[in-house]
Amino acid sequence: MSSLLIKDGLLLTMEPGEPVTRGDLLIEHGRIAAISKIEATNEIEVLSATDRLVMPGFVQAHVHLAQTLFRGLANDVDLIHWLYERIFPLEAAHDEESLYDSARLGLAEMIRSGTTSVIDVGAVWHIDSIFQALDECGIRAQSGLMLMDDPETYPQLRRPTGEALQSAADTYGRWNGKGGGRLRGAFIPRGLLSVTLELVHEVAKLAGELHAPIHTHAHESEKEIQRIYAKCGERPLMAMRSAGIAGPRLQLAHCVWLEPSEIDLLRELGIGVVHCPSANAKLSSGIAPIPELLSRGITVGLGADGAPCNDNLDAFMEMRLAGLLQRLRLGPGSLPATKILSMATAGGAQVMGLEAEIGHLKVGMRGDVIIVNLDGLHANPFEPDSLVDLLVYAFGGGDVESTIVEGQILMREHVLTTMSEKDVLMRARRSRKRVLERLRWN
Amino acid sequence: MSSLLIKDGLLLTMEPGEPVTRGDLLIEHGRIAAISKIEATNEIEVLSATDRLVMPGFVQAHVHLAQTLFRGLANDVDLIHWLYERIFPLEAAHDEESLYDSARLGLAEMIRSGTTSVIDVGAVWHIDSIFQALDECGIRAQSGLMLMDDPETYPQLRRPTGEALQSAADTYGRWNGKGGGRLRGAFIPRGLLSVTLELVHEVAKLAGELHAPIHTHAHESEKEIQRIYAKCGERPLMAMRSAGIAGPRLQLAHCVWLEPSEIDLLRELGIGVVHCPSANAKLSSGIAPIPELLSRGITVGLGADGAPCNDNLDAFMEMRLAGLLQRLRLGPGSLPATKILSMATAGGAQVMGLEAEIGHLKVGMRGDVIIVNLDGLHANPFEPDSLVDLLVYAFGGGDVESTIVEGQILMREHVLTTMSEKDVLMRARRSRKRVLERLRWN
Repeated sequence: MSSLLIKDGLLLTMEPGEPVTRGDLLIEHGRIAAISKIEATNEIEVLSATDRLVMPGFVQAHVHLAQTLFRGLANDVDLIHWLYERIFPLEAAHDEESLYDSARLGLAEMIRSGTTSVIDVGAVWHIDSIFQALDECGIRAQSGLMLMDDPETYPQLRRPTGEALQSAADTYGRWNGKGGGRLRGAFIPRGLLSVTLELVHEVAKLAGELHAPIHTHAHESEKEIQRIYAKCGERPLMAMRSAGIAGPRLQLAHCVWLEPSEIDLLRELGIGVVHCPSANAKLSSGIAPIPELLSRGITVGLGADGAPCNDNLDAFMEMRLAGLLQRLRLGPGSLPATKILSMATAGGAQVMGLEAEIGHLKVGMRGDVIIVNLDGLHANPFEPDSLVDLLVYAFGGGDVESTIVEGQILMREHVLTTMSEKDVLMRARRSRKRVLERLRWN
Repeated sequence: MSSLLIKDGLLLTMEPGEPVTRGDLLIEHGRIAAISKIEATNEIEVLSATDRLVMPGFVQAHVHLAQTLFRGLANDVDLIHWLYERIFPLEAAHDEESLYDSARLGLAEMIRSGTTSVIDVGAVWHIDSIFQALDECGIRAQSGLMLMDDPETYPQLRRPTGEALQSAADTYGRWNGKGGGRLRGAFIPRGLLSVTLELVHEVAKLAGELHAPIHTHAHESEKEIQRIYAKCGERPLMAMRSAGIAGPRLQLAHCVWLEPSEIDLLRELGIGVVHCPSANAKLSSGIAPIPELLSRGITVGLGADGAPCNDNLDAFMEMRLAGLLQRLRLGPGSLPATKILSMATAGGAQVMGLEAEIGHLKVGMRGDVIIVNLDGLHANPFEPDSLVDLLVYAFGGGDVESTIVEGQILMREHVLTTMSEKDVLMRARRSRKRVLERLRWN
């Protein structure tokens, strides 16, 4: 059926100035066809949303699906140790099947908690496993082959520059635009410590030719910045500019440590930033200057990052922590809930370059919608004008009842429709066991 | 039935050095009678816990049940404004019924998310409403009349010193020991800005005669400390010592801002501290030096504080934030998950003076137990040795399946047994409407 009518909900369109109002929402051929009072007919599938909230799904603009399988395995270390001693060996031990299972677990978890779009950071090997999981589950996504070619990087993840680039381009060609346009490719140099500057130059050229996004990590911890300075002779953002990849197609995860001039540069170059507050706190990296970035007009999205540095992929947790941390840094009014919710939806959409397609409920935009139960004891009582505050600080992923992407229901009343939750769990447990045995972990 | 057998669970006893092991737990006449392999008989009620975690319930050592009704109504302000412009008028507008409904909503929410004991901060008026709700719901609790007698405090909450003290003593007499010993009384001067030093002196005497606990707020924000200095000529802890209430029966919420000498003093005097990380972040108060307190041997419990400064009463949220904030302050190893979980259980028990009764699963201790579902996608996969880390960082209140206090099941497989959730919600909404209309709020 290509029409879905979401009936009688409380609509939070996220359109500026639009209050929450009761109404229906019709999705036809993947796009929002009408928002008003709509009569059901026999041809239209109807999903009741009476007394429930209907809002745009969350866009998680930085997640490591490859790491979901390793939840809880990287505690009590800082970023650099975490990468070299825990995450790199674990990632390198993936097989095709374990990577697929890792991606599926993360996707199932995120669909359950209301995420409808993700920017995934990919994997060096077996990348088709991730795209296959993305394709099957029905989510909107960007991913690609992760590039690691520096001679000093973790040997089992390193690929020669030319081979890495070729493989990334092939992957892009194979998957970009698939899933009826839901899937998008990207070029993903892991970070300036993991790649050669030669590769960065080539990525800039390749991405430019293909009009493809570039996604990477930078300015996450002070130690990382020092190491990049030692390697490149410049701080990360400047080094990326010198290498030619700093521009509007660049998506930059973290940006915790920025000089004022670097904030200016982010703005000038039109770079999108992704804020990952849980990961930055868990790895003791710091608190990103989000209000400062937003006030300069820089686009900021939100992301849960990888399961082992979070350890939960619920977008509500990221919103809550984003707000609490800025209240500690700058005081109560520094990052209002409306801005946080907007970061988690429209902000992420803009980082993806999809601001005309998703992030708001508006006729003509894609039908990426979630239905949220409003009767949780932990989220009551409220009046409509305190709803956004409570969405950020009181609600949780468990309140999401249904998740819809382009009009396809991926979760209906807490039940996943494109995956069996039991199967996802069983396979993830089995694959983790196999990978850890391979590594003789512990 | 006075016996309950929890069958075939994974037992996290929280006893030092005890790993998670599979087993049964028998509760007889409110106390743990056996932990081992136990045969079911016809006389014993059996609750299956196969593949689920059985652990001590959470102790929330600082909550404002009177404020649950006002969730979301006090955003984007700091502590002092929050109190005087929002919370005091709202609290003063309570009637008997709205206070009862406020308490029930908070209690239902906390029982749902695995809390089995609370220290409540009471109310100036209609305190019997709170005790009635505590009594009926079956939770273990400490509460009492909240004392506010300072001529400068909020007029509608102020009661003359003698009358306030008499009423507090009467309340104590009426409720302490009720509910088969589950309910305990306390003396609760709201904080040094709300009470006269004369009242504090009298509280010290009264609590000493009755061997009763004293619960209050202090060292929460820098502005509060300055105001107390202006009023008392000393910083809060010293002023409390001068007034005679600083000793082992004192429970001190917050303690965000402490001089090193004050940490010494807390230790010397045997004062228990309650950490409320969400409230301290939401009101921009700061981050309490918890690792420093714990390393000095000071008892620390955890609490969600009031709904409008949190806005969620889930103990898992407090644990997660407690850990993330210290990682930002002091680095990854500064507050391990085992210590956080211990704060949320045994630490709170010790603050309540109940360390011999609750906080661990051990033969002879009270049967205050929760059963946690381990199959949540957001909490998988894991091995037993990463379970405590995930309990702190990945699990949430929604994973709690059953909540048991003294062998009485208060929630069975997500369904409350001592309250109707629908009724709690309906009444809370109605009461909030009435109170806001009375105040002409907005």
